[in-house]
Amino acid sequence: MAHRVKDIAAALGAQAFGAVELLVAGASEPASAGRDDLALAMSPAYGAALGKGQARVAVVWPGADWEALGLEAAIIAPRARLAMAHLTQMLDADLPHTGISPQAAIDPSAQIGAHVTVGAFCVIGAGVVIGDGTWIADQVSIAAGVEIGAACQIHAGVRLQRGVHLGARVILQPNVAIGGDGFSFVTAEPSNVEKARETLGEAAMDAPDDPTWHRIHSLGGVVIGDDVEVGANSCIDAGTIRPTRVGHGTKIDSLVQVGHNVIVGAHCLLCAQAGVAGSTVIGDRVVVGGKAGIADNLSIGDDVVLGGGSVVLSNVPKGRVMMGYPATKMQTHIEGYKALRRLPRILRDLAKR
Amino acid sequence: MAHRVKDIAAALGAQAFGAVELLVAGASEPASAGRDDLALAMSPAYGAALGKGQARVAVVWPGADWEALGLEAAIIAPRARLAMAHLTQMLDADLPHTGISPQAAIDPSAQIGAHVTVGAFCVIGAGVVIGDGTWIADQVSIAAGVEIGAACQIHAGVRLQRGVHLGARVILQPNVAIGGDGFSFVTAEPSNVEKARETLGEAAMDAPDDPTWHRIHSLGGVVIGDDVEVGANSCIDAGTIRPTRVGHGTKIDSLVQVGHNVIVGAHCLLCAQAGVAGSTVIGDRVVVGGKAGIADNLSIGDDVVLGGGSVVLSNVPKGRVMMGYPATKMQTHIEGYKALRRLPRILRDLAKR
Amino acid sequence: MAHRVKDIAAALGAQAFGAVELLVAGASEPASAGRDDLALAMSPAYGAALGKGQARVAVVWPGADWEALGLEAAIIAPRARLAMAHLTQMLDADLPHTGISPQAAIDPSAQIGAHVTVGAFCVIGAGVVIGDGTWIADQVSIAAGVEIGAACQIHAGVRLQRGVHLGARVILQPNVAIGGDGFSFVTAEPSNVEKARETLGEAAMDAPDDPTWHRIHSLGGVVIGDDVEVGANSCIDAGTIRPTRVGHGTKIDSLVQVGHNVIVGAHCLLCAQAGVAGSTVIGDRVVVGGKAGIADNLSIGDDVVLGGGSVVLSNVPKGRVMMGYPATKMQTHIEGYKALRRLPRILRDLAKR
Repeated sequence: MAHRVKDIAAALGAQAFGAVELLVAGASEPASAGRDDLALAMSPAYGAALGKGQARVAVVWPGADWEALGLEAAIIAPRARLAMAHLTQMLDADLPHTGISPQAAIDPSAQIGAHVTVGAFCVIGAGVVIGDGTWIADQVSIAAGVEIGAACQIHAGVRLQRGVHLGARVILQPNVAIGGDGFSFVTAEPSNVEKARETLGEAAMDAPDDPTWHRIHSLGGVVIGDDVEVGANSCIDAGTIRPTRVGHGTKIDSLVQVGHNVIVGAHCLLCAQAGVAGSTVIGDRVVVGGKAGIADNLSIGDDVVLGGGSVVLSNVPKGRVMMGYPATKMQTHIEGYKALRRLPRILRDLAKR
Repeated sequence: MAHRVKDIAAALGAQAFGAVELLVAGASEPASAGRDDLALAMSPAYGAALGKGQARVAVVWPGADWEALGLEAAIIAPRARLAMAHLTQMLDADLPHTGISPQAAIDPSAQIGAHVTVGAFCVIGAGVVIGDGTWIADQVSIAAGVEIGAACQIHAGVRLQRGVHLGARVILQPNVAIGGDGFSFVTAEPSNVEKARETLGEAAMDAPDDPTWHRIHSLGGVVIGDDVEVGANSCIDAGTIRPTRVGHGTKIDSLVQVGHNVIVGAHCLLCAQAGVAGSTVIGDRVVVGGKAGIADNLSIGDDVVLGGGSVVLSNVPKGRVMMGYPATKMQTHIEGYKALRRLPRILRDLAKR
Repeated sequence: MAHRVKDIAAALGAQAFGAVELLVAGASEPASAGRDDLALAMSPAYGAALGKGQARVAVVWPGADWEALGLEAAIIAPRARLAMAHLTQMLDADLPHTGISPQAAIDPSAQIGAHVTVGAFCVIGAGVVIGDGTWIADQVSIAAGVEIGAACQIHAGVRLQRGVHLGARVILQPNVAIGGDGFSFVTAEPSNVEKARETLGEAAMDAPDDPTWHRIHSLGGVVIGDDVEVGANSCIDAGTIRPTRVGHGTKIDSLVQVGHNVIVGAHCLLCAQAGVAGSTVIGDRVVVGGKAGIADNLSIGDDVVLGGGSVVLSNVPKGRVMMGYPATKMQTHIEGYKALRRLPRILRDLAKR
């Protein structure tokens, strides 16, 4: 669908200059832009590439001389990535709302709202409730009793196990698994893990008399707030006797693990391959970098930022920026790391004294 | 289903006190417990929260003054988590055994035992053997020739590729993939990886004449023992010419990778996002912490405990508790880490001498 | 299918000795080989185990005295793993090409090539193009407009979202998700992540006025080259306004994350649980070890080797071998690590001076 430059600018809360009636059909990087594309040249580095493409109109950075860049029209966006959010939303195609597939297996007791799409080969169990306008792709399985809010998007291969409640406008990417059983096992006598934690690893571990792991069943389900997104192949496990929870507006990337009983606050970001072990509580607006891990039964304060790859082994007070393994304050980590880089030379010098 | 307090205590091997004929319908945390819930207050911290809820009966810690806590009855459990295992099992609903779905695609040569459930849109290939009482959810794919023991639970979206054998009572959470091809490739001439290992990274790497990766096919399949559980979206790859193996009673969490030819012993725990690279052999009762990784072709002895996030790059003798990257004995790791924390100040002091 | 020893040797480009007309039916490790197996004894350690099995013929190492090992025939392979590639390919069963399942849901506008297999309960959207000889297992979902080359293998539960293009001979293991939306969100005002990066974590983070994460939609799709393989449960996210790309001949293991806009070159290896964050560009023939992570917006040169578990936080010039967190040149990492191991003792000695 084509949009006028002036309409795009208005939608972006940005200013338009030049031939603002021009129509654009899509967005593109400057070098590969066609004549009807809106080029995205939000920094001078990208501006230089405009000449390689054919764009007549671009989103440019504040202060850019758009006429000198050879453009017929320009949109000036003060915060480039925010403009990207609005622009890509405008240009995105609507989901194909095709109604309820006759090839889905839907229990007659399920309550399906208005304008709901359910794709082929979905399985929807007894007593499931699905809110208005929710879109469900193909081959999704939704266990008996699951509740799904309005205007959700649930992509192919998602698994919602018993006890799962989703808020409104939740987006689940392909193959997300929510409500799988928590990983919670116990031996009859104290296990080696317990002994290792108690002794800080000083004692060698022996074979216990009875190594059997007894299973703690997961009865608590999962409650997901409104406006949450979960990336492909991520897992959120069911709680033991109360729900695992993810707060409103939190965004979770691909291949992330959220363990049983975990509480994730509102407006957090959990980047790809992050993991949160059982019963840990995470505050609001926390950012967990890619591949970062948080051990079990910890408390992470509001507004904490954990660097990519860090491993958190103790509680973190609110507002702190953390890095490393084990994670410490970012400054401490950097200082230690720099010292370590100098250490080999210093040890050589010491040896000479 | 409601249970009498005295029956629960008996099932838990615990003692009941007070109004032991009371019926309870479910378990709950103390603060959110209703009148018919059994509150779980297995430590004094939880006991203090009993007043916020309505529970009349609770599981309490040894020595707790249950009457002073306002309870009508109490169960005293010496090992709280073990009691949780028994209790949650009692309270858990049975799986809905609904027989063979007419919407499943089952090869006529498959041998399906008694009291087996197969959900909608499952695909079961030629010659598959499924033991008595096994429960298979929806949208599971089971390749030709796969053998599955009795009383297994296989959740939605699980993929069992050719050459997979499961023991009895195996539980597979959603979207588990077992028997995918191993990641095994070789170049015609020594590759950069081989050169980097040989030279310990001293030589800069060059482009080889022929960078083609030739595929080593996976013919060995996977053998999973009895009482194994595998968490959501985890992968266990097929062996090359002999099976990849997971021993009896081993529990594997979500998003775990077990590479081709790996042998995992009995009664191990592999926590979330752990990874074991190809051809490594792990003993019995080994605990691999969350996100821990073990490089290929290594040997990990019995009763080893690997801390969360550690990366093992060499063999580990039995009974050792390991941490860090590269993983060392936990005491060595802690000592090194503490020294590193002190190092910046010491370097500043040295500079002043 | 049985093969003559001399034919196997010819296929491997290796030399055969002794009773080269013998037929072998499969491959096996020496100790478990039956009379009709070809034992793989490519190093003296394996040769010693030949006596435990019944093999009459084996692949042995250059210089082995095969007659002294009790064999009737032998194949001598100069590069053992390369021989394994050829041999396992020879011995592997062909995929069962069974045509188009009547239980698949295929849009009439899809263009399906000759000799294509599509399994039960697959969903193939409008305008999909599938090349000749491609094999698609059960329960695969392929969104409208996806293009798939010739002779691909797509295993059960794979999800190809809109905008995905696959080259020829691509192999996708079970539950791979390609083209899920990128993880790209922005706040109206600078977020804590931006502040933490700017200040290197020196300022404590506060609650922003508006914590809402605005979604940047993914319009760019994914382009996968020829001869690429992707392991079970791995994810490759869609680009924002241009495709995420994976080059020819690159092999990706299980549970790997490739973020939006990433460009991976040709003939790379990405080992299990590796992760590449958004917009990073990786050259050709790069090897990313298991669990290694690369931060966003970086550039990794050709022929780089990243050790398992390393975390790359800055650009890497071509040909470098890297390790650690943050990753440095392997020699620097080893030197620093060795110094750290010595440090506790040295600090104790210093304290005594």
